[in-house]
Amino acid sequence: MTNTTYGQLGDLKRRSILGAIPAKWRFQNPIPPADELRDVTGAYIQQFLTPREIQITETDAAGITEQTTSGNWTAVEVTEAFCHRAALAHQLVNCLHEVFFDAAIEDAKRLDAYFAEHKKPIGPLHGLPISLKDQFHVKGKKDDPRRATFESELVKELRNLGAVLYCKTSVPATLMTGETVNNIISYTWNPKNRLLSSGGSSGGEGALIALKGSPSGFGTDIGGSIRIPAVFNGLFGIRPSSGRMPYEGAANSIDGQNLMLSVVGPLATTARSLTLLFKTVLSQQPWYHDPLVLELPWRADIEERTRALIRKSTEGSPSLAFAIMRHDGMVQPHPPIARAVEIVEQTLKRLGHKLIEWNPPAHHVAVDLFGRVCVADGGADIAHHLGLSGEPKSLQCIVGEGIPHLSALEIAALNVEKRQYQKLYMDYWNSTAEITGTGRPVDGVICPCAPHAAVIPHKYAHVGYTAFVNVLDYTSVVFPVTHADKKVDVPQPKDDFLGEVDKTVHEQYDPEAYDGAPAGLQLVGRRLEEEKILTLADYISQEVRLQSEIS
Amino acid sequence: MTNTTYGQLGDLKRRSILGAIPAKWRFQNPIPPADELRDVTGAYIQQFLTPREIQITETDAAGITEQTTSGNWTAVEVTEAFCHRAALAHQLVNCLHEVFFDAAIEDAKRLDAYFAEHKKPIGPLHGLPISLKDQFHVKGKKDDPRRATFESELVKELRNLGAVLYCKTSVPATLMTGETVNNIISYTWNPKNRLLSSGGSSGGEGALIALKGSPSGFGTDIGGSIRIPAVFNGLFGIRPSSGRMPYEGAANSIDGQNLMLSVVGPLATTARSLTLLFKTVLSQQPWYHDPLVLELPWRADIEERTRALIRKSTEGSPSLAFAIMRHDGMVQPHPPIARAVEIVEQTLKRLGHKLIEWNPPAHHVAVDLFGRVCVADGGADIAHHLGLSGEPKSLQCIVGEGIPHLSALEIAALNVEKRQYQKLYMDYWNSTAEITGTGRPVDGVICPCAPHAAVIPHKYAHVGYTAFVNVLDYTSVVFPVTHADKKVDVPQPKDDFLGEVDKTVHEQYDPEAYDGAPAGLQLVGRRLEEEKILTLADYISQEVRLQSEIS
Repeated sequence: MTNTTYGQLGDLKRRSILGAIPAKWRFQNPIPPADELRDVTGAYIQQFLTPREIQITETDAAGITEQTTSGNWTAVEVTEAFCHRAALAHQLVNCLHEVFFDAAIEDAKRLDAYFAEHKKPIGPLHGLPISLKDQFHVKGKKDDPRRATFESELVKELRNLGAVLYCKTSVPATLMTGETVNNIISYTWNPKNRLLSSGGSSGGEGALIALKGSPSGFGTDIGGSIRIPAVFNGLFGIRPSSGRMPYEGAANSIDGQNLMLSVVGPLATTARSLTLLFKTVLSQQPWYHDPLVLELPWRADIEERTRALIRKSTEGSPSLAFAIMRHDGMVQPHPPIARAVEIVEQTLKRLGHKLIEWNPPAHHVAVDLFGRVCVADGGADIAHHLGLSGEPKSLQCIVGEGIPHLSALEIAALNVEKRQYQKLYMDYWNSTAEITGTGRPVDGVICPCAPHAAVIPHKYAHVGYTAFVNVLDYTSVVFPVTHADKKVDVPQPKDDFLGEVDKTVHEQYDPEAYDGAPAGLQLVGRRLEEEKILTLADYISQEVRLQSEIS
Repeated sequence: MTNTTYGQLGDLKRRSILGAIPAKWRFQNPIPPADELRDVTGAYIQQFLTPREIQITETDAAGITEQTTSGNWTAVEVTEAFCHRAALAHQLVNCLHEVFFDAAIEDAKRLDAYFAEHKKPIGPLHGLPISLKDQFHVKGKKDDPRRATFESELVKELRNLGAVLYCKTSVPATLMTGETVNNIISYTWNPKNRLLSSGGSSGGEGALIALKGSPSGFGTDIGGSIRIPAVFNGLFGIRPSSGRMPYEGAANSIDGQNLMLSVVGPLATTARSLTLLFKTVLSQQPWYHDPLVLELPWRADIEERTRALIRKSTEGSPSLAFAIMRHDGMVQPHPPIARAVEIVEQTLKRLGHKLIEWNPPAHHVAVDLFGRVCVADGGADIAHHLGLSGEPKSLQCIVGEGIPHLSALEIAALNVEKRQYQKLYMDYWNSTAEITGTGRPVDGVICPCAPHAAVIPHKYAHVGYTAFVNVLDYTSVVFPVTHADKKVDVPQPKDDFLGEVDKTVHEQYDPEAYDGAPAGLQLVGRRLEEEKILTLADYISQEVRLQSEIS
């Protein structure tokens, strides 16, 4: 290996991924280039599938488990359908790092045999294929350095629940960027518009699920890495607060950095599927297997209280209050995103909910804290790992070149600064109780997830919209709202900017390039409010869809 | 101030504490020296009090609130009784740093006026005096640098609940030792035996509550600082897992160090009083006011499930399993502590509970991790603060002289090591489900809190019994069991030692010196199991008392 370059290793690995795809599922003819065919979702990918495969793969995770746990669909046919579609997806947008379809089909056979014998599913996710960001270890995977001996805690729990594991999805080198590119699969493209990014760092998840090569999967998020690919691909995704989902035994960048923790969370095509995955993983009591998970089972009482507030609202007595944050004081969003905010605002207004403007403690403080936390080690950990293969950094990922490596005392001071900001933000949130009219502070904050729809490659200039949530350790669910439309979302001339980055981002807006890209938003809740925010995001997104169908 | 030495400043402050005690409550005659009169509790201190004052001050916190919230006792008479007794206590053992009796009595008057007007208490702690370790800021205290402008979150919540704040108790310089000594009040002695330590770092709390100069108070614990003074003084104390009690706005050593967090918890004369304080603070929803507190209200369902298991046991169907850890593999406890373990073991056996021996992952790993976390900054923070007054370190506190100051990358690595140890310990705990016979792992671990009863000054050689709990972030409640008895606890000759420290500790046992010192134990539970462990500690300690009354 000493004489092999990282480029050659990447080639080998790239070929081995393709080699793991059965010949019958490989494209015989070259696919049209992206500038001729941007969108490979829907009709384009469907042409390679049977009607039955389309039916199965276009059902959401919650819907699939209804069929598989009742014995209507077998685990094998569901698994095969997703393996086939995932194989196509990878060939279209480069979204897989590991393919283990054979093992998956063997597992599915065992599940079917169990069902045949016991007349009941092995668990609530019986026969549900789940994709995994390439940070999780899967036992028996022959390419995995820990093969046959080690499985990440989440993977064990998913197996207990009856899920089928069949692939691992692409990530950028370092994990610390909002796009997905590396020296193995090169760039993971956005399936709705292959000139744009699928987001990152869980970009392979975003692209695969958008192509319905997976109904749902798990990513991780330290600065937006679940939410960005979810929103760039028109999906739902949750960044829970730290301590809810098991990270134990997964690979990570800068492992042990605990100023601000990376967290695990699901991405899916519906909000109810996120809830299903979140709830079933908690049913495994991960707090007995991961020292960082809190003993917090799914709190059905909170879900029920939230539903009661929604019901009360639909019965003509609006009981919910939301804040609208149009921009973060640093960067104004592009027209498609500003329009998405308006759509949600109008929907909530029409429903009679109380809306307030969000004027929080300055977000540039959060963004500054975020940046300092990411490079607290002066980039030493990432430099070390890039050094193992000799590969250069592949993007504007945060590696902290020339930045000082902090000492224990400096880290403690940074931690105090972060806590003080969290306290300020918390007090501001509390203070809204005086103006909502519900007797409570706002129930959630609607805001952009990024200033742009799925970004033009190498143009990700501002992660502030996601990063502030990580600094606060809040809960955030992203949901789809609309798509960029060059006819509607026309550039607005502007000469009054919030700062340099605002100007840069403004100038990067290109209605032609973004046309068709999904444009979604975040619903941000307080720390550990997952039950509430998942329930509200489901409600709001359904109302938004209904509204768009009406209009 | 530049020409004033820390010694002179200490003198001034010491005199100002005494000066704040009303003349009528000052001793007119010198009190007997410790070697003539070791024990100043009970009859000795009672001679200076009226029968009514004795009645009030010898009622536990839960009992006091029954009287004050029903209007049987006024807040003023309760407050005055405790102020008087606290004043005596301080003169006997040096346990106070701040005295604000006048403000307390004014507060009590307002509470009485409220009750008179509304015919109901202001909150569940209406009229209950609560002492505070000298880390909490109290508004309006004239000696406090943040006077009139700032109050720690816990203090605000206690006021909301109706509690009366009247004094702050002594701590050692740095907070990082198991004894309480500083250049202001010098040494805080153990009231049961004034030749011994009151423990630390919440030593003032331990001594004051032991003398019933306070029914209950709040301390903090990063290595045993609540449990050590509680157990040294025959009291109950809880070290909850991090994230339950609000630390926001309290002073601390090495603030921002977040490898292992210091936590807040109550000390009291009964377990039910700990539960009362814990539960009522949670009723204030501290998670909306302290970014580090988790949204975990008092879980009545867990308390109820635990009670049901206890009831089932008393009905002849033992349903609980405990582990006994006689020693930690590093240091054997002295005879009084070994006997305390036997007493509890026999009690649990008599009740029919399943008992197993505890053979956990090596505790020396925990103790090593603990030490490295404490000096991660090479002692820089503590050296800085000692430098402000120029005072020398006053004890064997952990200040890390000549120890390297870790970098961010080294801290991350240490954090990973700690997490791996937590995972090992967790897996071991899970594994006991196979041998308990209850279908569950052990419900708690009974073990020493220190190798000795209230320690002989400057002989605290091994904090491993408390520190392992902090490394694991587990829940631990200490409870009284017995007292050292020179007639029973005779030294055992030994020449086979677990190590050098074991030999040192063994040789330090002096039955004459320890005679009469309280000997208690810990009941250790898993992370965030406060409801369960408080309920079990109440049950076990009552059974132990019953047993000792029978025998």
